[in-house]
Amino acid sequence: MTNTNQTNSSTRKRGRPPKSGLGYENTRDALIRCGMELLTEQGFINTGLDQILKKIKVPKGSFYHYFENKEAFGYVVLESYSDYFIHKLDKHLVHSELPALERLQHFMEDAIEGMERFDFKRGCLVGNLAQEFGCSHEFFKQKLEAVFNKWQQRIESCLELAKAEKTLAPDTDCKKLAQFFWIGWEGAVMHSKLNQNKQAMELFGEQFFKLLPRT
Amino acid sequence: MTNTNQTNSSTRKRGRPPKSGLGYENTRDALIRCGMELLTEQGFINTGLDQILKKIKVPKGSFYHYFENKEAFGYVVLESYSDYFIHKLDKHLVHSELPALERLQHFMEDAIEGMERFDFKRGCLVGNLAQEFGCSHEFFKQKLEAVFNKWQQRIESCLELAKAEKTLAPDTDCKKLAQFFWIGWEGAVMHSKLNQNKQAMELFGEQFFKLLPRT
Repeated sequence: MTNTNQTNSSTRKRGRPPKSGLGYENTRDALIRCGMELLTEQGFINTGLDQILKKIKVPKGSFYHYFENKEAFGYVVLESYSDYFIHKLDKHLVHSELPALERLQHFMEDAIEGMERFDFKRGCLVGNLAQEFGCSHEFFKQKLEAVFNKWQQRIESCLELAKAEKTLAPDTDCKKLAQFFWIGWEGAVMHSKLNQNKQAMELFGEQFFKLLPRT
Repeated sequence: MTNTNQTNSSTRKRGRPPKSGLGYENTRDALIRCGMELLTEQGFINTGLDQILKKIKVPKGSFYHYFENKEAFGYVVLESYSDYFIHKLDKHLVHSELPALERLQHFMEDAIEGMERFDFKRGCLVGNLAQEFGCSHEFFKQKLEAVFNKWQQRIESCLELAKAEKTLAPDTDCKKLAQFFWIGWEGAVMHSKLNQNKQAMELFGEQFFKLLPRT
């Protein structure tokens, strides 16, 4: 997904060429990184373009060299975030030699550490955007649903593996259980951001494992 | 809580007296009701005062007769919403003759119907505000945490009752399970608002009941 967008935005030549002292891709990457940081912390609506530009010292004209508008920028940031998170999920759930349920445990620990690193100020960008736009913005809605589906599929495969390893009851509906996990996990991230500590995420993980139907 | 705030705001006499043709309490109630509607649908930041005032035909000057500013208005709307929800929880979980787990089931069905009534456009105000402000606004944060605690306590008491009725395993930690439920339920409401259907809320409820530790 990101590659397609990079191609699209590479064709954009409106606005001033970059004057940030960074190269083309570097400036674009810096904008996306800064967007990811601020949008996960304070949401899309609450983040002004000026704040992003000021932070990385890029003039407004240059921004429009890369992106049509704030919304188009939001999509690219969302896709970058989704890719980053898919990478994290695959690292723990796919490219691992551990038993399946330990993989899931490691993913959750990593996610908690990720939140801790930024004092629980940054939530989940996908959760933020879902709360902010949800039903009111058809294009964002479709993108967000697609991202959640991809994430859920990774969890589902991991749970299927646990079933094959006989650590999960053979009649478990892994698709439903994966949806249940992801629905709740988004709530846990939101609560941890609100309380500024890991208690909600840890509790959700602990209870989820405790309630899992075992063999 | 609402009574206290009504007293506070009753002492406010800044701004023009109401010219909406409604009486004092009626205008104030109309502002709160409209605030609840728009804030659950589009969030706090995204809702302009002008939009509220235009909708119920109240001039801006009159608004300041009742509320210090938008933020103070937000607190009163939050408290009204919390009271409304406590009433809903008590109706199902406390003032009922049904077995405890059926009470919880009925609460969830009622919440789904409530979302359905507005085409899944209105989420949970507390969830919305938590996502919007969370850690960035100390006063809102404290209010929101207090509201979640009250709601969780109702669920916990209901689960304790289920334990007494022997439909829940005797070693169940009802406090943790209630937190787990509420964390996940907020995620389910958010997902249902995003997908504009009840699937996430139904799935979460179904899986929660399926995973409950039974006697």
